[in-house]
Parts: sequence; C-alpha cells; structure tokens
Amino acid sequence: MSKISIVKIGGNVIENSKVLQSFLSGFAKLEGPKVLVHGGGKKASQWADRLGIPAQMIEGRRITDSETLELITGIYGGQVNKNIVALLQALNCNAIGISGADGNAIKAVKRATKPINYGFVGDVTEVNSSFFKHLLEQGLSPVCCALTHDGSGQILNTNADTIASQIAIALSASFEVNLYYCFEKPGVLRAVEDENSLIENIDTAVYKELIETKIIHEGMLPKMKNAFDALQQGVSKVAIGKPEMIGSNTKHTSITL
Amino acid sequence: MSKISIVKIGGNVIENSKVLQSFLSGFAKLEGPKVLVHGGGKKASQWADRLGIPAQMIEGRRITDSETLELITGIYGGQVNKNIVALLQALNCNAIGISGADGNAIKAVKRATKPINYGFVGDVTEVNSSFFKHLLEQGLSPVCCALTHDGSGQILNTNADTIASQIAIALSASFEVNLYYCFEKPGVLRAVEDENSLIENIDTAVYKELIETKIIHEGMLPKMKNAFDALQQGVSKVAIGKPEMIGSNTKHTSITL
Repeated sequence: MSKISIVKIGGNVIENSKVLQSFLSGFAKLEGPKVLVHGGGKKASQWADRLGIPAQMIEGRRITDSETLELITGIYGGQVNKNIVALLQALNCNAIGISGADGNAIKAVKRATKPINYGFVGDVTEVNSSFFKHLLEQGLSPVCCALTHDGSGQILNTNADTIASQIAIALSASFEVNLYYCFEKPGVLRAVEDENSLIENIDTAVYKELIETKIIHEGMLPKMKNAFDALQQGVSKVAIGKPEMIGSNTKHTSITL
Repeated sequence: MSKISIVKIGGNVIENSKVLQSFLSGFAKLEGPKVLVHGGGKKASQWADRLGIPAQMIEGRRITDSETLELITGIYGGQVNKNIVALLQALNCNAIGISGADGNAIKAVKRATKPINYGFVGDVTEVNSSFFKHLLEQGLSPVCCALTHDGSGQILNTNADTIASQIAIALSASFEVNLYYCFEKPGVLRAVEDENSLIENIDTAVYKELIETKIIHEGMLPKMKNAFDALQQGVSKVAIGKPEMIGSNTKHTSITL
C-alpha cells in the first residue's frame, strides 16, 4: 500500500502568517498523497465580537447558534480555507478546499440537544473515501475545513481533530496512513508550561497511566482519544507536535498501541 | 458532443431563500453535466456595515481593499457557496463548491491600478478546463463562487458573469454549451420597469441597435457583452431571464450571433 499523510493544523498555526507560510512550505514538499485538515482559530470569536454576535458558552464550550454557524461557515469554509488553498497553489501544491458537503465528503448527525444543546454541532457518521481517492488520484491535495453536512441541507460545525482522525481511518483501507496533529507545543507534555517535559512515546499503558495520574492537560485528552481511535481502526502512525515535525526529525510525541 | 449547462445566478436569487430553494430544485433536476456560478448578493455590504468596514466607492463601484477581500472570501467562498452545496446535496445533486484557487480552476491577473485602483479585483486569464472535466466525469457538479487567484497566493474578487462566460468558452471545446444568466427580470427589457417589454431574441444587429439607441439598462450591457463574447468563442446558446427558465418554457431573452 502507498503511504498517505493526513495533517491537522490548529488555530495557532493559522493565526500567525509566518508560521502558516513555513508550515505550508513543508506541507507542499511532502511526497506522496496528502490531506490537510484545519480548524478556524480565534478569528471566529474576533468577528463574532465585531458583528455583535453574543458568545453563548456552556461549561467552557461555545454554542453554535444559527448566526455563529453562518459566521464560521464563512471563516472556516471561505476565508481560512481559500487562503490556504491559494498559498498552496503558489507553492506548486495542487490543493482543493472542501467542506464535508462538497462531493458529499463527510456526513454527520446533529448532536442530541440533551443534556446540553450545543446547537449546530455535528458528529461524523461517514467519510466518502471514494471521493477522497478520486481527488488524490488526480494529484489533488484536499484541504478540509471543520464543517460537515447532514445530507438534508444543513451545515454542521465539527471538531477538526475528529475530522482528521475519521478521514485517516476511512483511508486506512487503501493507504498506509500517517496522521499528524500539529499545534504550538512540541507534543504531549508532563508539565504543560515546560517544553522539556515532552513525552516522546505514548503507548496504551502510558496513556492509561497519564489519565489515572491526571498528568495530561485537559485540552489534550480528546486529541489523544482521537489518536488511539485512529490506531485501533487501522491508521499506521500518529504523531503530535509542532508543525516543523512534518518532513523533519524535530522531537514530537509518537502514539502507538 | 454532449450538452452541458452553465448557469449563473445573481444576488437576488441567493438572497431570498424560497427563490433559491426553487431554483436549486430546478438545477438539481437538469439532466447532463452542469456547472453553477454564483455572485454574493447584498450580504457582503450588510456584513461590511456591521463590521465597520467602510465602503469605498469610485464611480459607483465598490473598491476591494484587503479587509473587503477577507470579508467576501468568507461570504462568497464560504457562507454562500457551502450552503448552496449542502442544499444541492440534499436534492441528490452531487455538488462541489470551488473558488478559482481550488484545483487551480481559474487564474486571473490583478487589474491595473490606473486609471482607477479597484484593489483586489482580478480579470480571468485562464480556465483549467481539464480540472472541470475531471470533476464532471465523476458526476460532480461544480458550484463556482466569484473568486479567482493569481497563482502567487493572492485571492482576487472577480465578476461572476465573466466567470460564467469564461468557463462556458473553455468548455465549448469539449461540450455543446448552453449558458444561462438568471436574475430577477424575465430577460432584456426595452423599458426596465415593464416586464411586458421583454425582447425575446437579440442578435448582433438588434444588439447594435439597442446600444445605439441607448435602450438597454446600463447594468445589462456587461452581461450582454459577456453573452456575445461567449457566442463568438464557441458557446452554442446564451439565455438571459428568471431562474424558472431553467428546464421550462418560461419566456426569456435568447442571444444569438
């Protein structure tokens, strides 16, 4: 099987144009088929403030009401996505930006409204792997934003880490998949403020220990869960670290079963 | 040669959700390969007001400064485009939303800054017809927003009527192309406020007469110019009228050489 790279970048990579440009140069040079998945960053909150759309938060999580959905459909699917695609085209990487609605790429179901009504938030139910394969066969590199659709005309806000792991799982039937989660830290840290506390290898046993001892930073837990889900469902390798780890030997965290 | 329909819808079709839904139902039912091109409508101006982005106008035309470009990249490429795609998917039309940057679909050159600096506005230089053909061969229907790229990483605001005619011309080497311009009027009118003054057929001679007698409404002239350009460069048929003309016998204006 040929190798494929699925790379997810977070808000901190997108927000700094130098960091983004440097990451995209590395991504463009990656050999073989590849897929980029991006979140939205702080821009959505900034624009919501400017537009006077009130932030509704429950337990620290933003609720996606219809106006917020309209806004992030513009920012994730348009502003961020099309700029990344244009920058990749300039680097001779034949990128194509998609949401889950395009080509029926990723279907989701709106999350149940109880116990908490998160609004227009979707959980992935199906990745259209043949659509991705057709694009990849044409030498195209899909650039996926964090939006899915429900098949009935509704766009849904969906976690970008999960989109990346679900695409990785779906493509693992046809490819040897390497999944990369890029963010501002060098990987999973024992002490969140100390970059020297990097844990270079995490297997199932270490993962359990880290959960039990509550050492892992809260925000890292869903990312780790996505990583183990992906490995258990056929993905070959998962790495978490700074964008520089793509195509270089920079230290990062490798996740293995 | 097989037939293809290239359909352009204007702001008035997009802004009214009932009109949009009705148009999309008709578009989804159109047989054979098809491409949709859409503008942005008034939403961009509304959001610009809310965001406090000042409208800079020269001779009645809005200047696309960097903040305006950011906004319309979100609205045209994200909000409007992804919603249309999701609605078409619900109608069993396998739509894929693209800007000119995606798959290097449409390249443009930034307009010269003299005599008037319109800002980030592009004039189409190249349509990647093989990219369009690959999508169409997969049974996909491209949904194109009014954004192009310059190949050096810059997104450019581009007239949607021109995008439609340029795609039509590029595909006329491989298809018998029918180009439809849909807007809120039944076609070209002798008196802009009187729908009974519809001119059902316009050929080169009538076109010249209409220009000389200054009968045509100013806003219609670029649309007509695009129509004749398209016919002169291989497009089979051009029609201008209400969205209902798609797939029905509603009266409209047919343009012929």
